[in-house]
Amino acid sequence: MSRFQTIGILGKSGDPDRVGPTVARLVAHLQSRGRAVLCDPTSAALAQPPAAGLAVADLGQRCDLVVVVGGDGTLLGAARSLAGHGVPLVGINLGRLGFLADLSPDQIEGTLDLILDGAYVEEARCMLVAQVQTAEGEPVPAPDPLPDPLPDPLPDPLPNPLPLTALNDVVIHKWTTPRMIEFETYIDGVFVNAQRSDGIIIATPTGSTAYALSGGGPLLHPTLDALTLVSICPHTLSNRPLVVPGSSSIEIRICGFDPGHVHVTCDGQTNLSPGARLRVLVRKTARPIRLLHPEGHDHYAILRAKLGWGGHQPQAADQPQVPRTSC
Amino acid sequence: MSRFQTIGILGKSGDPDRVGPTVARLVAHLQSRGRAVLCDPTSAALAQPPAAGLAVADLGQRCDLVVVVGGDGTLLGAARSLAGHGVPLVGINLGRLGFLADLSPDQIEGTLDLILDGAYVEEARCMLVAQVQTAEGEPVPAPDPLPDPLPDPLPDPLPNPLPLTALNDVVIHKWTTPRMIEFETYIDGVFVNAQRSDGIIIATPTGSTAYALSGGGPLLHPTLDALTLVSICPHTLSNRPLVVPGSSSIEIRICGFDPGHVHVTCDGQTNLSPGARLRVLVRKTARPIRLLHPEGHDHYAILRAKLGWGGHQPQAADQPQVPRTSC
Amino acid sequence: MSRFQTIGILGKSGDPDRVGPTVARLVAHLQSRGRAVLCDPTSAALAQPPAAGLAVADLGQRCDLVVVVGGDGTLLGAARSLAGHGVPLVGINLGRLGFLADLSPDQIEGTLDLILDGAYVEEARCMLVAQVQTAEGEPVPAPDPLPDPLPDPLPDPLPNPLPLTALNDVVIHKWTTPRMIEFETYIDGVFVNAQRSDGIIIATPTGSTAYALSGGGPLLHPTLDALTLVSICPHTLSNRPLVVPGSSSIEIRICGFDPGHVHVTCDGQTNLSPGARLRVLVRKTARPIRLLHPEGHDHYAILRAKLGWGGHQPQAADQPQVPRTSC
Amino acid sequence: MSRFQTIGILGKSGDPDRVGPTVARLVAHLQSRGRAVLCDPTSAALAQPPAAGLAVADLGQRCDLVVVVGGDGTLLGAARSLAGHGVPLVGINLGRLGFLADLSPDQIEGTLDLILDGAYVEEARCMLVAQVQTAEGEPVPAPDPLPDPLPDPLPDPLPNPLPLTALNDVVIHKWTTPRMIEFETYIDGVFVNAQRSDGIIIATPTGSTAYALSGGGPLLHPTLDALTLVSICPHTLSNRPLVVPGSSSIEIRICGFDPGHVHVTCDGQTNLSPGARLRVLVRKTARPIRLLHPEGHDHYAILRAKLGWGGHQPQAADQPQVPRTSC
Repeated sequence: MSRFQTIGILGKSGDPDRVGPTVARLVAHLQSRGRAVLCDPTSAALAQPPAAGLAVADLGQRCDLVVVVGGDGTLLGAARSLAGHGVPLVGINLGRLGFLADLSPDQIEGTLDLILDGAYVEEARCMLVAQVQTAEGEPVPAPDPLPDPLPDPLPDPLPNPLPLTALNDVVIHKWTTPRMIEFETYIDGVFVNAQRSDGIIIATPTGSTAYALSGGGPLLHPTLDALTLVSICPHTLSNRPLVVPGSSSIEIRICGFDPGHVHVTCDGQTNLSPGARLRVLVRKTARPIRLLHPEGHDHYAILRAKLGWGGHQPQAADQPQVPRTSC
Repeated sequence: MSRFQTIGILGKSGDPDRVGPTVARLVAHLQSRGRAVLCDPTSAALAQPPAAGLAVADLGQRCDLVVVVGGDGTLLGAARSLAGHGVPLVGINLGRLGFLADLSPDQIEGTLDLILDGAYVEEARCMLVAQVQTAEGEPVPAPDPLPDPLPDPLPDPLPNPLPLTALNDVVIHKWTTPRMIEFETYIDGVFVNAQRSDGIIIATPTGSTAYALSGGGPLLHPTLDALTLVSICPHTLSNRPLVVPGSSSIEIRICGFDPGHVHVTCDGQTNLSPGARLRVLVRKTARPIRLLHPEGHDHYAILRAKLGWGGHQPQAADQPQVPRTSC
Repeated sequence: MSRFQTIGILGKSGDPDRVGPTVARLVAHLQSRGRAVLCDPTSAALAQPPAAGLAVADLGQRCDLVVVVGGDGTLLGAARSLAGHGVPLVGINLGRLGFLADLSPDQIEGTLDLILDGAYVEEARCMLVAQVQTAEGEPVPAPDPLPDPLPDPLPDPLPNPLPLTALNDVVIHKWTTPRMIEFETYIDGVFVNAQRSDGIIIATPTGSTAYALSGGGPLLHPTLDALTLVSICPHTLSNRPLVVPGSSSIEIRICGFDPGHVHVTCDGQTNLSPGARLRVLVRKTARPIRLLHPEGHDHYAILRAKLGWGGHQPQAADQPQVPRTSC
Repeated sequence: MSRFQTIGILGKSGDPDRVGPTVARLVAHLQSRGRAVLCDPTSAALAQPPAAGLAVADLGQRCDLVVVVGGDGTLLGAARSLAGHGVPLVGINLGRLGFLADLSPDQIEGTLDLILDGAYVEEARCMLVAQVQTAEGEPVPAPDPLPDPLPDPLPDPLPNPLPLTALNDVVIHKWTTPRMIEFETYIDGVFVNAQRSDGIIIATPTGSTAYALSGGGPLLHPTLDALTLVSICPHTLSNRPLVVPGSSSIEIRICGFDPGHVHVTCDGQTNLSPGARLRVLVRKTARPIRLLHPEGHDHYAILRAKLGWGGHQPQAADQPQVPRTSC
């Protein structure tokens, strides 16, 4: 029997005209295949007939598989919300082909059937957790064990240390100032360097095609157990992206006493002012998320399509040397 | 009892005035500590009194530790020659501080004593092996199991497939032509892209501070199990360095029929024309080399010193925002 | 007779302990040389005895030379305030050697005497003017002729089009958002490209060592009649800095209707929200500023010192080929 | 009367099947328009009926316009051969759209008619001349006035100093060695830096889209009076492309005594070993070449097409802020 009996649907909010038809088709098809279907509140309102919506955390707890309808942005949010539940995700992309959400709505029934029948590839994508801490002279404490799964929603007020999760990147950056910020970087407690820049991007392999790419970082294979540190507009010639083991504990110590000009952003979506908290500790979460792709998924084909690589596979190879300007 | 009873000495050739005094001090000190000392032919002639020299492979077989006297270049050669023997290496740098050879000759007796007494850090540094193959239509064969240790010296004529080893990098590059070469890259059998460029650097983390750095690649932590692929002057805007798992099998297929304009170089030292062989397969070797450092070895301190990082650790942090041009 | 009879002094505000002694020495020395000395309000309060301070615009109108005491930041502000007056500037750097303020306070009397006696080099450094305009469907008007000199202070409310001046750069960038902005670039009315990024830096040659350097731009010689356009973290691989003739008229058209997330910053100091104004037009000002250096001024020596270039001039050249890792 | 009465045709050699039909159409059409048509030997043999071929220098002397049939590579060679004659060039591109040869053969009659009738845009594209000199202690002599036009063919043996011309770039680079070369750069007699690298590219604005682009250089507008210096794989983090005034005199002093490992290449086509000559002096030629384009020629449109810029002009601008990964 298929391991996927209860299927969750999590739709992009605020875009019912585009999400609705796909959600309706999904619900109908999955029910016709004998699956139990649970929806988040957004999707529930769009199903035919409308259903009762569950909190996202409940989807994580009760489903064998969650289908995310929207795009990479929607999938990033879903991954953060479902981190720790261990439920696999699959993404349907309503817009352009995504890095994460790589199913087209056109063939959704056929592709989902294949996945339900086991014809899929599963990737473990590591996530980051950021803790923002005070800097009143105390040593940085060993990071508390994180609750796994994380509480959803997060408590208000936020605890200190505060765990924030990210699938792409944790970015420490200037805020409401045209000037640079100054900070020191430590890896596993060892001083790396001090820099003046607009900030720093700490990215997973998944995030290496997002903001880290914009900042000049390398492309990390999704299965690599590594993190990359990419400075944003460093005011020096001698900066270069770093790639460190996935087990590294990264600490950014903001210099100075005006932390209002520093923000911490996760996946470009969660945006926090550290206030008087001046140390940001970033590590991998204990558990990666599970991302499913249809069989035949080709990471490099997506890179070629998304990044404009001109890499047509040569048919005939008759020109071993090529001038820079050719006829 | 110390695990290091028989110590090999391997000196840089062609530089007796600088190598001689250090070798003589080393031999005298190690013998005074009751160690058996074996020398390669270069070092043997410089010892006081001169000793009988052994082939490098014999050093690898008979020694518990090999002390390399010269610099990073000497250590690269020693690593390739001793790959597979499993003997740990330690490097004394006669010139500027090296990335690999990080012991100063000034304090050599004291530092060596610490290492003999067990006060050292051991790093496993992965190495690469390149096989160059014909391209007469046959599929690329599964790589033969490499003899481990590799024969020393390598047989003449070279076998096909030919195993070449590298600690820093395998570089496939144009030769005796001002024009570009054209090739395709495959990783684990999957097509990545086709490019026109001056070549490509496939580097270990160790090599990420060598040629790959010059080509714009990221800095990989030495313990990261990864390889980086850095194109040399690609004629496109859309190229970006790749970082892939250390287990990856990388294949470069040279396009065209004029392979005289393509060379394969390992560590900038072994330089081979592939002749009619048009596929280059690069993987990690089965065993890394073992590199010893004195306790307290700080990778980032070496980076700061060697790469001109201005990263003084700020004393007082009183300037949270910094203009780009400041008083 | 020296052309410099009336000398203005313009000091960095907010730092009397460091500025005071130099201002006092300057006033005393210049008066001993028979010069009339005029001070801005900051410097006037620090002279011995305190003098009456003049508005900066009055300094521009009445002085033959203005000595700026502070650093590059102070000189940037002075240049913008005095743009259009045609008065030459010389900068004393209280901190580290500056790109612009290159006189040390230690030898200020001797160096100034040489300049008073005509032993100086004069550079014309071009400046930028930015006009921010509404985008309610009307064609971009031909830019109004700018008043030259510009009114000081600028009127409040600001006119539309609004002239802002910069010696380093005009930067159009995201503000209070972690997300990208989207805009089109036109040069001399011709569409160049559309991009998503954190912003764009339009820099003079003077500014090519400031923010544009951080963004990956080239180093432009100060006398080059050119501007450079450097994108800030563009989300594409195919972006590259542009260098265009100094006479170019550059237009940035912000896309979308939420201009609160876009700011225009000049020299990192003047920071403006374009509000409902959505087109930014940037050109050179009609007149450059005049910057004096002591004779023997060496632009490349400053670059080597400031940018950490290891460029020691080789003494003996005995090594034509160099391995990447050497002894 | 049109200023273009005598038209030269200069075809790519070695590709008669592709060049022939276009040459035949060109000759027939130009003669039908009453023009005198002169051909280089390659084109002459392809005309119908075959005609007598003239030396390229004779074309330069006798023609009012030379039509180059081939591609950018053919046009580069034509520009070097015709440098100094002052004859305008127009390029027909038999392959992909070129940066220089931008006429399609499909509409060649109509487009040429427009040019003959004066509906064209003329660009002055600056060229470089390189002189290679001995370094036996003598000061670098003031460069001899170059013969203008240059002799064609160049004398054998080559004179010292030797003038070599280039439209794209003069490249000083390693040759038959995997190792770096070491050299110093001087601009207008002032020391800039010493570097170890694979070489350096000195490019015109025209060449900024050729090898200099591959090396990471900026894009210079074709009409900018400037040169760019781009290092090839420099072994330092602190290198950055330079842009200097077009009037600059650039000197590269090769360090060391093994000049066999250094070559000087112009436009990727002329390749010279400097032998015992160890200084390379590069300047603009006295006269630029004249390049004609059809009216409406759009430099940025060509950049977008050739460089894969995704710059579609947005139709509707309703998204002021964009997440890095979007639906």
